[in-house]
Amino acid sequence: MKKSEYFALKFENDTLIFLDQTKLPFQETYIQTDDYKRIASAIERLEIRGAPAIGVAAAYGLALSIKNCSRQSIESTFQTALDRLANTRPTAVNLFASLNEIRKTFIQNVTLPDVYSVLKECAVNLHNRDINNCEKIGKNGLAIFRKKSNVLTHCNTGKLATSGEGTAFNIIRLGFERGLVNHVYVDETRPLYQGLRLTAFELEKNEIPFSVQTDSMAAALMQQNKIDLVIVGADRIALNGDTANKIGTFNLAVLCNYHDIPFYVAAPSSSIDRTISSGKEIIIEYRKKSEVLSFNSFEIAPDYLDVFNPAFDVTPSHLIKGIITEDQVYLFPYNFIL
Amino acid sequence: MKKSEYFALKFENDTLIFLDQTKLPFQETYIQTDDYKRIASAIERLEIRGAPAIGVAAAYGLALSIKNCSRQSIESTFQTALDRLANTRPTAVNLFASLNEIRKTFIQNVTLPDVYSVLKECAVNLHNRDINNCEKIGKNGLAIFRKKSNVLTHCNTGKLATSGEGTAFNIIRLGFERGLVNHVYVDETRPLYQGLRLTAFELEKNEIPFSVQTDSMAAALMQQNKIDLVIVGADRIALNGDTANKIGTFNLAVLCNYHDIPFYVAAPSSSIDRTISSGKEIIIEYRKKSEVLSFNSFEIAPDYLDVFNPAFDVTPSHLIKGIITEDQVYLFPYNFIL
Repeated sequence: MKKSEYFALKFENDTLIFLDQTKLPFQETYIQTDDYKRIASAIERLEIRGAPAIGVAAAYGLALSIKNCSRQSIESTFQTALDRLANTRPTAVNLFASLNEIRKTFIQNVTLPDVYSVLKECAVNLHNRDINNCEKIGKNGLAIFRKKSNVLTHCNTGKLATSGEGTAFNIIRLGFERGLVNHVYVDETRPLYQGLRLTAFELEKNEIPFSVQTDSMAAALMQQNKIDLVIVGADRIALNGDTANKIGTFNLAVLCNYHDIPFYVAAPSSSIDRTISSGKEIIIEYRKKSEVLSFNSFEIAPDYLDVFNPAFDVTPSHLIKGIITEDQVYLFPYNFIL
Repeated sequence: MKKSEYFALKFENDTLIFLDQTKLPFQETYIQTDDYKRIASAIERLEIRGAPAIGVAAAYGLALSIKNCSRQSIESTFQTALDRLANTRPTAVNLFASLNEIRKTFIQNVTLPDVYSVLKECAVNLHNRDINNCEKIGKNGLAIFRKKSNVLTHCNTGKLATSGEGTAFNIIRLGFERGLVNHVYVDETRPLYQGLRLTAFELEKNEIPFSVQTDSMAAALMQQNKIDLVIVGADRIALNGDTANKIGTFNLAVLCNYHDIPFYVAAPSSSIDRTISSGKEIIIEYRKKSEVLSFNSFEIAPDYLDVFNPAFDVTPSHLIKGIITEDQVYLFPYNFIL
């Protein structure tokens, strides 16, 4: 692998190899495992993150869980692994969709002598689908650029967040290649600085001009007419288009609304949860307060402070001009039932 | 001084004693100096911060500059000190108002044998005026509470930001004492975490219940109907009410507008700049990128990244429901000429 290359995850020789994103941008450390518990903990600790990448990693994890399993214990082992992986993160729907696909395949094939190979194939298919979706999202997204644009994005939606080239990030990347993107502004994305650490890392690898800023500087940037459009990812989209994404996204959407700047969401259609009618039903993950009060064990404030720390917020659909999937660019008002 | 007591600055025995706020909340270190250059650098490095406190510290610094000065060099020394102190921070108008008051007194009294004592008295008067203003702002501000309220605030406006009991913070403090404040939510206030480090420190000293959050979580809090009103300070207010305050304030005002939550500003009337008609004329300070990329020498991201780092933003007056000064609570639309 060339020094400029990187990937979020790869499946090779019956092991998952993934980049520990908690150590970025200073260390590029890859971890190799065939243990689903290690994969579950990687998802919890955000070593693997991004809704599509979580879905793919969990699928491989679930397949691996029964690899060396005896016939007698295969069903209970599978169930234990399914529960463990499903309990890592509550908000991203891709996780549950992936696990469900592996579960269905397991039920249909549990009596086969090599059920592991069947599950592995299913996970590889999910993985390839994610790669293809990213490609299509990128191309579909080019339609949102009205001119050479200055783009603002939040959190990370690139190669690090998917097993392909990314969602919102891939639109920016392809837009830049086609001369449709001038400059990218990146919210640092507190508390875990995924913009400052991860998106900045990816923009640099792709040689796209960019600046970073704290999340609350986006308003001043917009006031100065420096932003033409905003594109972000999604962790779960309700049938009416209400979208859960990294905390701070709703904030940005309100700012876009005030400044009359188009606000777009990009995600694979697997992020659309067809079982819920609105964002009110989306389960929001609250995380531990140390994420806000410290960074990599460096304390900013004492750890006894009370902290409000939701990992995601929900943007009401009327603030979202377009939702870009691998199928098409949907425009408000949304109705994904059809 | 009891362990629970603290102050931003004090003038004793012809020296300025100030708390080094860059070390809070982990260390309460007081620095004592009679050197105006040290005071200028304390203002630049934000050891002393908050528009009213900066104004008072600069006044003492300018007075001290000529304390041991020979007759021949007094005018040039005074001018050098004035220039140095005026170049520390560009946005807070109180700094320039204070320096100007000392300058006028100097011009009128330069021939007196003990001009230093006259300047010192002028600085003490400015200091006492700040203390009184804080008291009046706190009392005037009680009028904004319609019920026992959950209050959100940004940055720091307490004893650490003034030489009295604070501006917006003093309204919260008195409101809590009178049973008008239920809970306080504090934006961490990136990049320098003045909310997380300083306001949290002051709320704790005052035993007021509070939670902290990252700046971009305010939108989710408001969406959950957890905020009744927002109060912040000001560094400069134009004649039409457009207000410069810590970066992230304009952001909050837009969120309040969307959620129909009243948004208030509290400041001494010396923060009103009667020479400018609108916020477009307010000079915004841009600060070095290391403030965003690292904290207390702890690196979050590599220091070669390009950073957009304005220290303040300007909230248009139509988003501000009321401006609370020592004189009265002004309501939108503002016209401070009269």
